[in-house]
Amino acid sequence: MTGRADRLARVALNWLLEPGHLIGWEMVHAYGAPEALWRILNDPACHSATRNTAAARLRAGDPLQTAEGFLTRAEQVGARLLVPGDEEWPEQVADLRTIDLRSDRERVDRDTRPPLCLWARGPLPLAASLARSVAVVGARAATEYGDRIASEIGFDLASQGWTVVSGGAFGVDGAAHRSALRAGGVTIAVLACGIDRPYPSGNTALFERISETGLLLSEWAPGEPPLRHRFLVRNRLIAAATRGTVVVEAAARSGAIQTLGRAHALPGRTAMAVPGPVGSLMSVGCHDALRNQPGTRLVTSAADILEEVGSIGDDLAPRPRGTVQDRDRLDEDSARLLDAFPHGREITADQLSARAGIDPRTTLRRLALLVELGFVVDHGGSYVLVPPRRVPPS
Amino acid sequence: MTGRADRLARVALNWLLEPGHLIGWEMVHAYGAPEALWRILNDPACHSATRNTAAARLRAGDPLQTAEGFLTRAEQVGARLLVPGDEEWPEQVADLRTIDLRSDRERVDRDTRPPLCLWARGPLPLAASLARSVAVVGARAATEYGDRIASEIGFDLASQGWTVVSGGAFGVDGAAHRSALRAGGVTIAVLACGIDRPYPSGNTALFERISETGLLLSEWAPGEPPLRHRFLVRNRLIAAATRGTVVVEAAARSGAIQTLGRAHALPGRTAMAVPGPVGSLMSVGCHDALRNQPGTRLVTSAADILEEVGSIGDDLAPRPRGTVQDRDRLDEDSARLLDAFPHGREITADQLSARAGIDPRTTLRRLALLVELGFVVDHGGSYVLVPPRRVPPS
Repeated sequence: MTGRADRLARVALNWLLEPGHLIGWEMVHAYGAPEALWRILNDPACHSATRNTAAARLRAGDPLQTAEGFLTRAEQVGARLLVPGDEEWPEQVADLRTIDLRSDRERVDRDTRPPLCLWARGPLPLAASLARSVAVVGARAATEYGDRIASEIGFDLASQGWTVVSGGAFGVDGAAHRSALRAGGVTIAVLACGIDRPYPSGNTALFERISETGLLLSEWAPGEPPLRHRFLVRNRLIAAATRGTVVVEAAARSGAIQTLGRAHALPGRTAMAVPGPVGSLMSVGCHDALRNQPGTRLVTSAADILEEVGSIGDDLAPRPRGTVQDRDRLDEDSARLLDAFPHGREITADQLSARAGIDPRTTLRRLALLVELGFVVDHGGSYVLVPPRRVPPS
Repeated sequence: MTGRADRLARVALNWLLEPGHLIGWEMVHAYGAPEALWRILNDPACHSATRNTAAARLRAGDPLQTAEGFLTRAEQVGARLLVPGDEEWPEQVADLRTIDLRSDRERVDRDTRPPLCLWARGPLPLAASLARSVAVVGARAATEYGDRIASEIGFDLASQGWTVVSGGAFGVDGAAHRSALRAGGVTIAVLACGIDRPYPSGNTALFERISETGLLLSEWAPGEPPLRHRFLVRNRLIAAATRGTVVVEAAARSGAIQTLGRAHALPGRTAMAVPGPVGSLMSVGCHDALRNQPGTRLVTSAADILEEVGSIGDDLAPRPRGTVQDRDRLDEDSARLLDAFPHGREITADQLSARAGIDPRTTLRRLALLVELGFVVDHGGSYVLVPPRRVPPS
C-alpha cells in the first residue's frame, strides 16, 4: 500500500485531467503524484495546456476535497481504490506507457497512458483475476449470430478457468459476461463511468451479478457519468489488462475495432476476430481487420483463442500444463485436496492444508502435481480450481 | 506449332503415365517427347517404375495408335490439342515444374509436373483468356450462402473482364461458371475427364454454354472417364493456370483446399478464402486455411480479390491502368473506336481500324490512350473491351 497522500493525489489528478492523460502521467512518473498535482496547480512553468485542462475542472471544486469525496462514496457503495504498488494492481497495464498508435491527432489516440488509479467493486482480487484473461468485445447491435458466438466463447473460456473481460454493453459484451457467469466462471466489466452507476442501466441486473462473483472495474470515480469519449479511453484498458482481445462482431468503424487496434499496439497482446457471413454489416469490421490489420488472427472458438493467447508465452501468468485428467486416477491425498478446494475463488496452500487436514509439506507436493495435471492453477502462491468443462448451452 | 511427332508422343506419354507424372515430364524435358516415349517403351535402363506404369497401360493398346485415335475423336467433337510452343499455350503452367508440396508421400503430391498437352473446346484462345483469370472453387455441397457468394464473385469478376476458372462441379464451381456467363463474361471449366464427356452430367447444359462462349479444358483425352484421383491431379492445373485461387466454401478436408495448397506452393499465385458463419461445416475449410495456412488472404468480394491478384505485379498480363472514365469525355476518334469494339471478344488493331474506318496509325495511338484510361485491355497485340460494371443480380 502506498501512502494516503499519493492515493489522494492520483484520484485528484485523474479527475482533473481525465484518465490516460499523456503529460499528467509523465509528470506523475517523474515527480510522484503529490508533486505532479502541486506543479499543475501552482507552477506557472508547467505545461500550459495541461494547466488549462486542470483549470477548467477546478471550477467544479477543490481537487483533494473532491478526491476525499470520491473515497467516501466508494466506501458507501462497497468499492475500493487501487493504485500501482497495491497487491491487486495489474502490473501489465504499465505497457500502456509505450503504446504508439501512429495517429495521435485525436486526443483519444494521444491520451493512452496507463491508469493512475482504478476503482473496483466485487469479491475477486484484480491482478490474479486478470492473469489469465481474454477480452471478448463487439457490437452493441449484435445479430443473433454474434450473440450466439459470444455466448459460446464466453462460456467455454470461463469453463476453462479464463476470466472473460468486456465492456458491459448490450450485444456482444453482455452475451460474453452472461455466458461466463452461466459457466460459473469469472467475468470483469470494465466501465466508462463510476462503478456505482454502471451503464447501460438496462444491464443493471447483470452488473449486480458481476459485482457479486466477479468485478466491476473503472478508471472513473464513483458517481462519474459515462461521457461519450470515455468509452474510447476505456478501451485501451480492456486491451492492456488482458492477454488478448477478441472482436466477435463489429461494424466497419466501431469501438470494438478500436480496442483491437490497442491490442495490436501493445506488446504481447493477441488481436483476434471472429469471421461471419459475408454481407452481414456486423461482420464487416471483423473481416476488415482480418484483411487489413496485419497480425489479426482469425478465431472461431475458445479453443482457437486459447491456442493464440497460449502461444505468446507465460509472461503474464502460469498456465496449466498437461490436460485435465480423470479424478478417479488421483492418489488419495490429491483427491482429498481437490475436494477441499473452494469453487471459483483462490486459496493458499496453508488454508487448503487446514481444510483438507493434510500436512503442509504433502499439500505443497500434491498441489504441484495437481497443477501439472491441469486440475488447478497456481496464481503465484495461491491456487484456484479449473472448473470442469461443461457443454455450452444451445 | 511443333511437329506432329512431338504432338503424338505427348498425347501417348500423357495416356501411358497420366498427367503430372514426375519422371515422364523430366524425360520429356531432357530428351523431347518422341525420344522419351521411345526410351520408356524400349530402353531397359530407363526408370523401372515408370516403365512398369507404362506397361500396365500398354495392354490396352499401342500408344501412338491410341494417340491418333484421340486426335480423330477430338476433331469429331470440335476440340483441339495444345502443346507447349503453340500460340495458345499458357506459359505460366510451366511453374508447376518447381512446385514443392513438402509431403510427396502421396502420388498426387509427387506427380504435379506441368501438363504435356491440353485439350480445349470452345471459341476463345486459351493463353489470352487465362492472362487475367481467377479460380473460384469450393464445395460441391455448397450451402445457399456459398452459392450466393460464388455467384456474386463470379459475376463481378467476369463483369470486370476477368476470366472465371473453375472445375465444373456442382455447388460453388457451377455457381461461379453460371454467374460469369450471366455477366456476359468468360469462364473456363477445367475438367478431370475428356472434354467430350464433361462430368457431372447434371451440368451438361452448363458445359454446352461454356463451350459456346468460353472454354472446356482438360489434360485427359476425349473419351477419358473422370476417375477419382484425376480430380486431385487436375487441381494443380487450376491453381497454376490462374493468378489466384479463391475458395468460397469448403469442408475441413476437401479438394478445394487442396487446390488452395497448390496456389500457395506456386510462385506469384494468391491463395484466398471467403469467410462464413462460424458453425457452418462448409466454412470450416476456409477458416482453417485462414488460420493455419500462412499467407491465405481473407476476401469477401471481387473487389477484395482484384486487390489481391493485382498486387502480385504484372508478370502474367497487362492490367488496365487508371480507372474507367466517362465515355463522354473522350475525343471523337477514341469514342468511335470504342463503339466499334466487339463485346466479349478480342480484336486486333488492324481489324478495329477497318471496323471503325480510322487509319491504322491513329487507331494504335488511340488504343494506347483507351488502355491507359482503362476502357480496353491490351492482350499482347489484340485488344478486348472492359465491360462496364453492372449491378449483380440479387
